[in-house]
Amino acid sequence: MAQERIQRLIAGDRRTLSRLITLVERRDPQVPDILRQVHSHLKGAYCVGVTGPPGAGKSTLINSLASLVRKENQQVGILAVDPTSTFSGGAVLGDRIRMQHHALDPGVYIRSMATQGAQGGLSSSVGQVVRLLDAAGTDMVLVETVGVGQTELDITTVADTVIVVLVPEAGDTVQTMKAGLTEIADIFVVNKIDREGGHAQMVALRSMLALGKRDTGWRVPVLGTQANQGKGIGELYATVQEHRRFLESSSTLEARRRERRRREFLLSIEETLRLRLADLLQAEGALADLAGAVEQGEVDPATAAQDALKDNVLPKALRPAEPE
Amino acid sequence: MAQERIQRLIAGDRRTLSRLITLVERRDPQVPDILRQVHSHLKGAYCVGVTGPPGAGKSTLINSLASLVRKENQQVGILAVDPTSTFSGGAVLGDRIRMQHHALDPGVYIRSMATQGAQGGLSSSVGQVVRLLDAAGTDMVLVETVGVGQTELDITTVADTVIVVLVPEAGDTVQTMKAGLTEIADIFVVNKIDREGGHAQMVALRSMLALGKRDTGWRVPVLGTQANQGKGIGELYATVQEHRRFLESSSTLEARRRERRRREFLLSIEETLRLRLADLLQAEGALADLAGAVEQGEVDPATAAQDALKDNVLPKALRPAEPE
Repeated sequence: MAQERIQRLIAGDRRTLSRLITLVERRDPQVPDILRQVHSHLKGAYCVGVTGPPGAGKSTLINSLASLVRKENQQVGILAVDPTSTFSGGAVLGDRIRMQHHALDPGVYIRSMATQGAQGGLSSSVGQVVRLLDAAGTDMVLVETVGVGQTELDITTVADTVIVVLVPEAGDTVQTMKAGLTEIADIFVVNKIDREGGHAQMVALRSMLALGKRDTGWRVPVLGTQANQGKGIGELYATVQEHRRFLESSSTLEARRRERRRREFLLSIEETLRLRLADLLQAEGALADLAGAVEQGEVDPATAAQDALKDNVLPKALRPAEPE
Repeated sequence: MAQERIQRLIAGDRRTLSRLITLVERRDPQVPDILRQVHSHLKGAYCVGVTGPPGAGKSTLINSLASLVRKENQQVGILAVDPTSTFSGGAVLGDRIRMQHHALDPGVYIRSMATQGAQGGLSSSVGQVVRLLDAAGTDMVLVETVGVGQTELDITTVADTVIVVLVPEAGDTVQTMKAGLTEIADIFVVNKIDREGGHAQMVALRSMLALGKRDTGWRVPVLGTQANQGKGIGELYATVQEHRRFLESSSTLEARRRERRRREFLLSIEETLRLRLADLLQAEGALADLAGAVEQGEVDPATAAQDALKDNVLPKALRPAEPE
């Protein structure tokens, strides 16, 4: 039964794919086992992250990119990661718009994922979904995140190429995000480039990039697009492919992916520990008592945390099993 | 020796205070013990968080607020939390500007804290510094953070009153931050209100707030200021005091502080576990081997994480000590 499910996934059955993604979202205990079975079927789908402030036109951009990828007869997966705990109007609307374009195309799989406020946890969930898509035969996964710095999803944990999308009026936004975004962007896009200040922003971004040079051998390009008109999308897609070739030829791709696997491994452990801790606090016991004393102001939080770890207050549930 | 140090702190010795803050920043192992000793000397300093995008005028606002607090002969602490790993030009410059105003006033203690990329860890560090300031006799602590959503420091983990500062041109920024900021703001300030669109933004914020009503009994006010002219600061300070009275009279203050202590307790445990995990990965052993296999792509990260927790791969260092 379970194995049949994996077979259906690998055969590209969308219903199975959707169900498995739901399991990942719910952090179902079956997930590690599913991924264990999926592991030998991975083909190394290429993952492009598209991030930027709301209203920058990320969905439209992704939509247009997806059309180009489809022209090469490649299977596309689109993941829209919603940073709010409940679906916002924006995400649902975005889905509908995307749907209109690609709804009838079996070569495009579209999915929204809500973050459910799980800090850090999202990065591993999205990574897991990318692997499910990969196993289901997806060649390229486009992940859309609302990025303002590294809020909830660290896009670099999943993406091979990170596109940062800005719009001309976001002068303040550039300021805001400067530090974080120059570090993660492989490609900058100024969308709605026809607006006032568009080219000035491209110039500003380029000089900013020239200042904060990274030593990777890749010069981060700044492109202008009008996604809703399809303008500049061809160049953008070509640049993504150029970046991919750069990563592959310099063996940076494999190095990045190694680093990412390691990070996801750590995040998964941390998340499990965090969930167990939360469970323990709900249950009666020494930890809950200690938390109560902290709440009442009887003990300092940092001191109590040290005590919890030192004095064996954390019960067995948090520890790995004893050796036989 | 150690106890003398605490005595000097409580006597308000700035040098001691600065040294202890440095220990917190470095996550020195002495910290929990210091906080244990400090605990009985806490007087419950009131903490005001000021957050908003860079360039919104937060420093100037805090500077002016501090002057008003000083007029009431209260001791003020100012913490500027820098979101970048190294000091940005902005923070250093901000410090200098503040220094010019309050440098000769022994009733104002000013400190910048860098975040050092410790996700989550910052919230507990800042909380610890606030307690040190409290023990040193500070009546009001003003914490400045660059807030775009809840990036690195969740200001609600430390502040009794959260002021969110915006500027008229940040139309996009408002969009960006809407979800996160309406939830955390106790007071909204539109600074540089004389700029075009200032009053329109106040109106927009008010209708936004009317839509997303919180059921706390506190109506979040929207104020206009020109911090560099000192305009509106008196009203802002009066509003902070009004909010404080509201919290105190509704016993929300104590409830909030209880909740915060609990959160800091959890964050501290999680951080310690995370640091131990990182140490383990550096050392040779079963966990490092497993991480190596994950990196090579031999095992799925999520599966390996489960194995690490299940099969006792995490060695003793991660576990609490055995019972005697």
